[in-house]
Amino acid sequence: MKILVTGGAGFLGARLARELLRTDRLDGRSITELAVADLFPPPADLRADPRVRVHTGAMLDQAALFASGFDGVFHLASAVSGECELDFELGLRSNVDSTRVLLDGLRKAGNVPRLVFASSVAVFGPDLANPMPDLVSDNTLPSPQTSYGTHKLMCEYLIADYTRKGFIDGRSARLMTVTVRPGKPNGAASSFFSGIIREPLAGMQTTCPVDPDVTHPVSSPSNAVRGLMTVFEASREAMGGRLALNLPGLNVSVGQMLQALEEVAGIRVRQRVRFERDERIAGIVANWAKGSTADRALALGLRADASFQAIIEQYMADCRQPSYPADALRGLER
Amino acid sequence: MKILVTGGAGFLGARLARELLRTDRLDGRSITELAVADLFPPPADLRADPRVRVHTGAMLDQAALFASGFDGVFHLASAVSGECELDFELGLRSNVDSTRVLLDGLRKAGNVPRLVFASSVAVFGPDLANPMPDLVSDNTLPSPQTSYGTHKLMCEYLIADYTRKGFIDGRSARLMTVTVRPGKPNGAASSFFSGIIREPLAGMQTTCPVDPDVTHPVSSPSNAVRGLMTVFEASREAMGGRLALNLPGLNVSVGQMLQALEEVAGIRVRQRVRFERDERIAGIVANWAKGSTADRALALGLRADASFQAIIEQYMADCRQPSYPADALRGLER
Repeated sequence: MKILVTGGAGFLGARLARELLRTDRLDGRSITELAVADLFPPPADLRADPRVRVHTGAMLDQAALFASGFDGVFHLASAVSGECELDFELGLRSNVDSTRVLLDGLRKAGNVPRLVFASSVAVFGPDLANPMPDLVSDNTLPSPQTSYGTHKLMCEYLIADYTRKGFIDGRSARLMTVTVRPGKPNGAASSFFSGIIREPLAGMQTTCPVDPDVTHPVSSPSNAVRGLMTVFEASREAMGGRLALNLPGLNVSVGQMLQALEEVAGIRVRQRVRFERDERIAGIVANWAKGSTADRALALGLRADASFQAIIEQYMADCRQPSYPADALRGLER
Repeated sequence: MKILVTGGAGFLGARLARELLRTDRLDGRSITELAVADLFPPPADLRADPRVRVHTGAMLDQAALFASGFDGVFHLASAVSGECELDFELGLRSNVDSTRVLLDGLRKAGNVPRLVFASSVAVFGPDLANPMPDLVSDNTLPSPQTSYGTHKLMCEYLIADYTRKGFIDGRSARLMTVTVRPGKPNGAASSFFSGIIREPLAGMQTTCPVDPDVTHPVSSPSNAVRGLMTVFEASREAMGGRLALNLPGLNVSVGQMLQALEEVAGIRVRQRVRFERDERIAGIVANWAKGSTADRALALGLRADASFQAIIEQYMADCRQPSYPADALRGLER
């Protein structure tokens, strides 16, 4: 089975690629080739695997690759929310035009490959005509309030039409906010959902820009990867008559996140987080989903993470891997 | 005021252009220039008006025109449903790529022009996960089952994002099925909604491919034009917090349409329609909206046509214009 992961050098894409290589099976078949396409080369462990083919460059230049006959595709490559707001044309090019090139290549290959598109909870937004419910569901009318969410939604509908026409066998899985992300704060409005856990664990002081009662649906990286793989393996019938679905999210408040941090890592670690309201970020977050449901994903057997403690413990276990910075858990040392 | 009508040589576009020239005002301002862009030149009466500028050719080649500083735009140009199903790439080019060229030109002009996009009731479709309600409303989750409906929906969201960014002041008005269209049957599945009125009035036998109890939301051409102009003139606030809305439709059954024909034109005319079920067409129509509501358009003061009799009478009045074929009402002669 020949698999393509776009965005496969990114945080989530590389994690998905690793999991595919580890299980070595997808939909009951063995993985003979894993193409990793991204702007940058993937981490060394992926490059070292003999099944991996690295394709570095913009998706807009990869039409021939996409038409080369993949059996399955995970499409994760995307300009993120902040980039799209800063550079409108880059967003359209990276998210809409690139997806068109991918879909047209897959159509030309003619073998009706299965495709999972990494969509986002960002398709939902407040809507004066129909205020967003407390929990966004598979049946909530999307009303994106970012270019990123707009692009994701447009691609969902495009993928549904390519599928209806029989060109691909596509589906769209809406990721919840993935936390805890490693690395540095990235300036995205959602960055603090990782920062308020990651920084204190590394021994650094940090600020939380929103009130403790702010709630949001989140997912651990490994649960997000499980969601993408499960949606890939689902039969068309099991998708329940529609091709886009919410992945399960753990609906949690910032206060609960910090309480979990204290339980896992102690009060000294938690006390490194200070509340300092940032009106700009708080305003953006106020327009986000306060929580989500995922009835159709639950019917596929998917579940939200068991607890935010479990999400923190997953991050701490990751940090003990050699590929993570040695000081990622410095804050735990006594 | 400098106005652009894309698709302005088509049936509805030319009618809109005529009405704009007749009233000579839009949003309280006088119309100094009316650009008519289409693949073909508009009818002679439009070409003869000194305010009209004709731009013939594909929208993809009109980037400079679109950036030339319009105050208002009505975007009606579109490949229709049947064309898009036959030629997938033509559909994307004509409906999605062309709209991108238009929007980017308007953005580059920098004057934040107002734009009304002619969307369609075709954005709605059946959805196993959430069966279509009997009446599709502004709050119904779109689930298009044609490429045409997919493109319309993608453009609605794109226009909302260009508007959110402050590049244009856009809104999308979903047209119901416009009837009675003049001319020949055009092979579209919806063609019979005009044919069962137009052909018997011209003295021709015709068949109706669906059962008399099939219902659908329809609009007269002049009510559709009124809808587009009213949505143009609405304030952003009056749009009620969302930029796409249903225009009002008259929810009517085929049997009621024929009863109206009998009342207006007599039983001999009605008897020229014979029911001959066409499983292909009946199957397509079974997936269409059975009716619609339009609460937000009603709040703008718009109303559905008063009756199907009134729609037929509008068509008969049109037929008495010199531009219509002399034999369009031949069936009425005794």
